[in-house]
Amino acid sequence: MSHDDCKAWCYSRQNPVVQPLLTDLYQITMAYAYWKSGKINDYAVFDLFFRKNPFQGEFTIFAGLEECIKFLERFQYSDSDIKYLKSTMPSSVDPGFFDYLKNINVNNVTIYAMQEGSVTFPRIPLLRVEGPLITVQLLETTLLTLVNYASLMATNAARYRMVAGKNITLLEYGLRRAQGPDGGLSASKYSYVGGFDGTSNVLAGKLFNIPVSGTHAHSYITSFTSIDDLQAKTLAHKQTGEVYDLLELASKYRDAIAGDLGSIVSEASSGELAALISYAIAFPERFTALVDTYDTKRSGILNFCAVALALNDVGYKAIGIRLDSGDLAYLSNAARDIFERLAIKYNIPWFARMIIVASNDINEETIISLNEQSHKINCFGIGTHLVTCQRQPALGCVYKMVEINGQPRIKLSQEVAKMNIPGKKNAYRLYGADGYALIDILQRSTEEEPQVKQKVLCRHPFQESKRAYVIPTRVEPLHKVYWKNGKVCEPLPTLTQIRDRVQESLKTLRNDHKRNLNPTPYKVAVSDDLYNFIHDLWLQNAPIGELS
Amino acid sequence: MSHDDCKAWCYSRQNPVVQPLLTDLYQITMAYAYWKSGKINDYAVFDLFFRKNPFQGEFTIFAGLEECIKFLERFQYSDSDIKYLKSTMPSSVDPGFFDYLKNINVNNVTIYAMQEGSVTFPRIPLLRVEGPLITVQLLETTLLTLVNYASLMATNAARYRMVAGKNITLLEYGLRRAQGPDGGLSASKYSYVGGFDGTSNVLAGKLFNIPVSGTHAHSYITSFTSIDDLQAKTLAHKQTGEVYDLLELASKYRDAIAGDLGSIVSEASSGELAALISYAIAFPERFTALVDTYDTKRSGILNFCAVALALNDVGYKAIGIRLDSGDLAYLSNAARDIFERLAIKYNIPWFARMIIVASNDINEETIISLNEQSHKINCFGIGTHLVTCQRQPALGCVYKMVEINGQPRIKLSQEVAKMNIPGKKNAYRLYGADGYALIDILQRSTEEEPQVKQKVLCRHPFQESKRAYVIPTRVEPLHKVYWKNGKVCEPLPTLTQIRDRVQESLKTLRNDHKRNLNPTPYKVAVSDDLYNFIHDLWLQNAPIGELS
Repeated sequence: MSHDDCKAWCYSRQNPVVQPLLTDLYQITMAYAYWKSGKINDYAVFDLFFRKNPFQGEFTIFAGLEECIKFLERFQYSDSDIKYLKSTMPSSVDPGFFDYLKNINVNNVTIYAMQEGSVTFPRIPLLRVEGPLITVQLLETTLLTLVNYASLMATNAARYRMVAGKNITLLEYGLRRAQGPDGGLSASKYSYVGGFDGTSNVLAGKLFNIPVSGTHAHSYITSFTSIDDLQAKTLAHKQTGEVYDLLELASKYRDAIAGDLGSIVSEASSGELAALISYAIAFPERFTALVDTYDTKRSGILNFCAVALALNDVGYKAIGIRLDSGDLAYLSNAARDIFERLAIKYNIPWFARMIIVASNDINEETIISLNEQSHKINCFGIGTHLVTCQRQPALGCVYKMVEINGQPRIKLSQEVAKMNIPGKKNAYRLYGADGYALIDILQRSTEEEPQVKQKVLCRHPFQESKRAYVIPTRVEPLHKVYWKNGKVCEPLPTLTQIRDRVQESLKTLRNDHKRNLNPTPYKVAVSDDLYNFIHDLWLQNAPIGELS
Repeated sequence: MSHDDCKAWCYSRQNPVVQPLLTDLYQITMAYAYWKSGKINDYAVFDLFFRKNPFQGEFTIFAGLEECIKFLERFQYSDSDIKYLKSTMPSSVDPGFFDYLKNINVNNVTIYAMQEGSVTFPRIPLLRVEGPLITVQLLETTLLTLVNYASLMATNAARYRMVAGKNITLLEYGLRRAQGPDGGLSASKYSYVGGFDGTSNVLAGKLFNIPVSGTHAHSYITSFTSIDDLQAKTLAHKQTGEVYDLLELASKYRDAIAGDLGSIVSEASSGELAALISYAIAFPERFTALVDTYDTKRSGILNFCAVALALNDVGYKAIGIRLDSGDLAYLSNAARDIFERLAIKYNIPWFARMIIVASNDINEETIISLNEQSHKINCFGIGTHLVTCQRQPALGCVYKMVEINGQPRIKLSQEVAKMNIPGKKNAYRLYGADGYALIDILQRSTEEEPQVKQKVLCRHPFQESKRAYVIPTRVEPLHKVYWKNGKVCEPLPTLTQIRDRVQESLKTLRNDHKRNLNPTPYKVAVSDDLYNFIHDLWLQNAPIGELS
């Protein structure tokens, strides 16, 4: 198999890095200690959940499920893995353990999960993983690493989408600043899921079928010094095929419009004009130009408009410009104004509607501030802040044992917020008559499902006095079985379907939960039965303190 | 080829994600526009550099070079890449371009680079990339993504090493919170480079030969409810082979020492004792215990000491404890005090020196604060803050054209700090008699090397009045040719050698440049010749403004 085929083969299945050894060593040492102490048949339930929404927000998008399932589909220690583990673990480790590990599989593991792309909240399990204790413990780190960044990234992208509004095109441009090559690839994938329209990352386009986009860099402009650098100057008319001298046309238009723009032709860069003409000849149907290499107003926009008007004479419609520095609100208004005036002057209505892309160090706050200034930008290209999730670069999902051999488990903590909710649980989302989600409720798995139009007592998991009756108009069970008996048992949606799910799911959330500033927390409750179960267990396990 | 062999094959060469399509689309569209405008034979020089040190510090560690070189060694567009590009680019693109792209190679590219693991500073090129314009442009994004995170991560790790001091063991525990699976792998690799001693990431251990470490999680402890859960209780003596009942021994010691610890046996968790005994039986030579699952002092440390004393009777020395919550300074002192008292009580001197590992949300500031409280921790396990570089999750390396066809290029910017230094340049580090680095100087490539014991005029690149004469005791050229004529031409160091280089290189930097609070900026100068060259070019290119 050639390396190319191999790469393609790997990727058609899964990122090759995602394999059983992509884990913390303590999972393996624990597995041995369990094995050694005869706990091979113990059966455990783990919840994978987070305790706090990221970005000072009040919601999170769950993503990464498909990668988790693909990981399970191929979960097996290879001979070289076993060889490595033998060389790393103490020589006193019983060789029988390595045979056990070599033959371990995930056929007895069951995974309940939320639908990928759903809005979710603290303490609701994203995954519930049941199965032989040793096996489910061995899955912990890999599942966490697959869910944590995917969900963080999708949430971040969804937040950008919300502040930008639905009519703005959002493009992910972060590959060069991402955390590692595959950090960049995951960023492209999950920003698309979260609501971006495309990426500059070509490999992401190829692997995940995400739209790719891009024009040119400043270096393209600076590589041309003058008109003399222009070798090809002609372009055939789109319809007639007649050959035109694009340089002559553009120069004519530049002279004709400089006054309209308040520019002086001699001050505009002729290297830039040459670069734009050459780019228009290469991409007459997709002519987008970076206009801030020298002086945006006096040179860039003037040269762009001259070339765009010349292209129009040759039967092509230019796409627009990209602004990568300066006052984006002001410059976008100035550019739009020029486009509109030239549209009238030359009677070319589409000229007024050309695209303005902005791309300099954009984050959520920049977009909010630009909105307040009423900019004329159609598209944002967003890099560093988006892909590194600068405001909070990690989501804190944890994976906690909640039951073993049918017995609930609780990990007490000094901090109440760090307590986990013990036992096997089901989760439901209760909706009101207006279609909005009212509350999520966790119940013991033995309880009846909440019923539509019936009173449901919802309690705060830790504060006794906080409780409310809710009468749901719709009840949505939040988990489905995705993996059982060694098989995927729920169809895995395509990336586009997951992306659609994000927007649908967000629509069911009231705006005050989603707003950027001081959003209202969405409530996650427990049933009365679960409340009592937790607190009984808590009291049983907590030692009585002694002050001295 | 099996999938395992394939993965091994991929990895023996390179991360399979690192391939020519891991780039921004605009590199490909620019390549086509260059090709179309007859610029196939243009020759360009690009500098890869950053403008600001990360983490409010005054130094950066350069890393990622080996991955860049490996990327070049295998740079080739595959048939499926070409097929994808054809499907993505406009149908008007000349098919000849795809043949050109398919046959492109990097045999005419030359790469000058700093030694990997070196301390470096703003504006010093980490890489200088020369070659056919189209080819070197196509390398931009991938080189940036390989250098940016690697350098950021190595720098972050080096900063943790500095605040921790050289006698503390530092372990990277961040996989579950890293940005994507391979973000985690890169984090493990480059935190080792920056001065960490090991990682919990098993795959990183296997692929990069980094020491791996780990004990058990809280779930291991909570999976045991009582002594009844303990199936195996015996351990053979290390020397004599005589079989001992570890439970009996540990219980005896627990009763005997509870008073010394101010604990009450009935308040200690017997599930925890069972868990620790089972773990000690599995790893008698590497017994390290997580002691904060229930109550650190009243239960965890008591149970640990009981099992450690029992192990001692069976010929084994326990390693130590891990604290994962609570007041780490206080608890480490309390634990150390108990270890010391029991060492005396039972006349076991090594008992006093057992390892204390701390691991709860540690960052640079936590370590500094713990140092001020005189903790007794021997080892930090560090996750989220380390691997996501929370304080600044991206390094801003850029890749700028500085010369084309022998002509210098400058990109003017409203912000002086964003200007690049044009032309092909060499860089030197000038050292003083005390062995410390005094200043880095950039010169035009045509200038003579600075000479030892001769006056060198060093100028601030942009501020006319800032200049100084430096008389170096040693002059170090900062760049070597690593890639030329399609071959690696400088031996690539091992990971351990790069790791050693980091510490050696840091030693040559004065402490005031390295300190955490308000470090002194290290100076990066230009020669007088380069200064004049920049400023002549600047004036030639900057249009004279007009205020109206």
